[in-house]
Amino acid sequence: MERILEILNEMENKGIKRINYRNIERVFGALQKTKDFWTLIDYSDIPVPYMSKLINILENKGYVKVVDRKYIELTNDGERLIKDLNIPPHKDYKCSACQGRGIQFYRDIELYRKFVEIAKDRPPAIQDFDQGIVTPETTISRVLFLDSRGDLEGKEIMVMGAEDDLTGLAIALTGKAKRVVIIDIDERLIDFDNKIIKELGLKNAEARVHDLRKPYTDEFLGKFDIFVTDPPETLAAFKAFIGRGIATIKDVGGAGYFGFTLRDSSIYRWHEIQKHLIEYGAVITDIIKNFNDYMNWDYHDDTKASDVAPVDTKPKDIWYRSSWYRIELLPGFKRENDPIEDSVFYLDEEGSTT
Amino acid sequence: MERILEILNEMENKGIKRINYRNIERVFGALQKTKDFWTLIDYSDIPVPYMSKLINILENKGYVKVVDRKYIELTNDGERLIKDLNIPPHKDYKCSACQGRGIQFYRDIELYRKFVEIAKDRPPAIQDFDQGIVTPETTISRVLFLDSRGDLEGKEIMVMGAEDDLTGLAIALTGKAKRVVIIDIDERLIDFDNKIIKELGLKNAEARVHDLRKPYTDEFLGKFDIFVTDPPETLAAFKAFIGRGIATIKDVGGAGYFGFTLRDSSIYRWHEIQKHLIEYGAVITDIIKNFNDYMNWDYHDDTKASDVAPVDTKPKDIWYRSSWYRIELLPGFKRENDPIEDSVFYLDEEGSTT
Repeated sequence: MERILEILNEMENKGIKRINYRNIERVFGALQKTKDFWTLIDYSDIPVPYMSKLINILENKGYVKVVDRKYIELTNDGERLIKDLNIPPHKDYKCSACQGRGIQFYRDIELYRKFVEIAKDRPPAIQDFDQGIVTPETTISRVLFLDSRGDLEGKEIMVMGAEDDLTGLAIALTGKAKRVVIIDIDERLIDFDNKIIKELGLKNAEARVHDLRKPYTDEFLGKFDIFVTDPPETLAAFKAFIGRGIATIKDVGGAGYFGFTLRDSSIYRWHEIQKHLIEYGAVITDIIKNFNDYMNWDYHDDTKASDVAPVDTKPKDIWYRSSWYRIELLPGFKRENDPIEDSVFYLDEEGSTT
Repeated sequence: MERILEILNEMENKGIKRINYRNIERVFGALQKTKDFWTLIDYSDIPVPYMSKLINILENKGYVKVVDRKYIELTNDGERLIKDLNIPPHKDYKCSACQGRGIQFYRDIELYRKFVEIAKDRPPAIQDFDQGIVTPETTISRVLFLDSRGDLEGKEIMVMGAEDDLTGLAIALTGKAKRVVIIDIDERLIDFDNKIIKELGLKNAEARVHDLRKPYTDEFLGKFDIFVTDPPETLAAFKAFIGRGIATIKDVGGAGYFGFTLRDSSIYRWHEIQKHLIEYGAVITDIIKNFNDYMNWDYHDDTKASDVAPVDTKPKDIWYRSSWYRIELLPGFKRENDPIEDSVFYLDEEGSTT
């Protein structure tokens, strides 16, 4: 107990307050299962910069050893601490059939196959816009999730700032929506979408370039039933993506979807964004942990994550995941559409993968 | 569109404002898949009293016909409305392996089997205390869920007002917790638990009678890592169960679990309770829809639900489900422990199954 409090004190001395006893415990749980830095983050759910400093402190205190800047090993002292405090190993009971999402992507195998074929030629993720591509299984599960909630068929859907995942295109592929508008800052993605939309003759779908820091015009405000997005985890981006997403919704009962992670944000940040959601007049209907699996991105070496990591190894497997939120709008919901000038749009002290 | 607004107007005339366009749409989606009143509620996620009034209005307007007080049928007008408004049928993509929970109860088949054997002799659910028993698959999934989050092994756990489900006993059966205290108002359940605890020699587990309307003493306040509960959906009960549950938590990072339904509460009520959670200093980490499946209870005929229903048929299958919430406590979290005098503890205008 005291040893953990000492670790927390050292973290606080390094300016990190948004971490608690249970977080440290989880790290020691994860260390019993993996030596890989990235998997450690996956299992422990704390932001990369925090984990990097934490490993540094744990090494100084003699609980772990970073070997050849390759992997992280518990020392005898570390193992003794785990035994003394009775800290259980990390456990994973995730359903093997649906990967823990509660919905099987292969329920619509035709859609999945078509999507994979099309997505193989998509533009690669680039760092400029905080892109990270989710697995095709994730994208299709998102679409089926919308469908199972009555949020797809016959609906007008705004998919904004999430097109690195081709979620908008996947929705368009179903042919079920009344209208799909796909918004992204990245011209490459928009061009790709419009090319496919044209080639396949997909009805009622269009893709447009727009920087979400800039307000929407009346063309989009209050015109949609559903929005889908995937913001960076800064508060500025939350307002630009979620606030503006809410602003596109027509009426009470409209719904929004977005991913939010604990890799680039602490649980304390989550509390702030949930407070904002409640104040916006939104109610949270679902939060599904690790629904969104992100494939490793080519620009990993150039990220702050790679820079601050105590190892030189690249992630070998999926380690970046986010929870899937669904919200519904209630009477009096607020349409926030201000310009966002904030300089920490993509990156702040808890973020590192952009 | 106008026809739906007319329906909403009529609902408002009958004093029901907490319902919106999308709710009505969902009901018409469900009506394409079932004629059973209880399944209709399951698919539509609106409180029983609201659904009863709604069916009444839909029948008056000629969209449905209640046949022999047995089942509910779409009329030609109802089918035309669905076609005109392009309302999709209710869809269920729930994972068949984990029943949509994201976790397979049979990952610990020994525990499941042992629990089923023990639970066969448990006291039946009674109306006095708003009891409704979840399936054994639900109970075991809850335990595995706690375990997968590091909330079981070596933890001090308070299970309060949820023992009709024998969740506390199931936790005790694992032998993994440091301590389990089971609290319930129902002496029958507490006696049953203590008998099993004694017979099996379960360590560190005890069951005690307590009425959650009354405050806890220092014996329990700030003494636990985790609480688990299953409140009635009134605000008074929310405070008594969740507020008091939070008050038992030792420190930041502690976690709480509870079920909350849309059968006895509108989504508007959810917004209120989420606001309270945020104000208490809790962050919501998970909301998993339909995690908790409730078996039909013997006292159904004596409920307000049975009373207000437009049919005389009893539920034939599981129709009552609730979402599974997990929360974590952050710095400055509030320990609410006031006595609850509220007369609408078990039942209010949205509730009906107690």
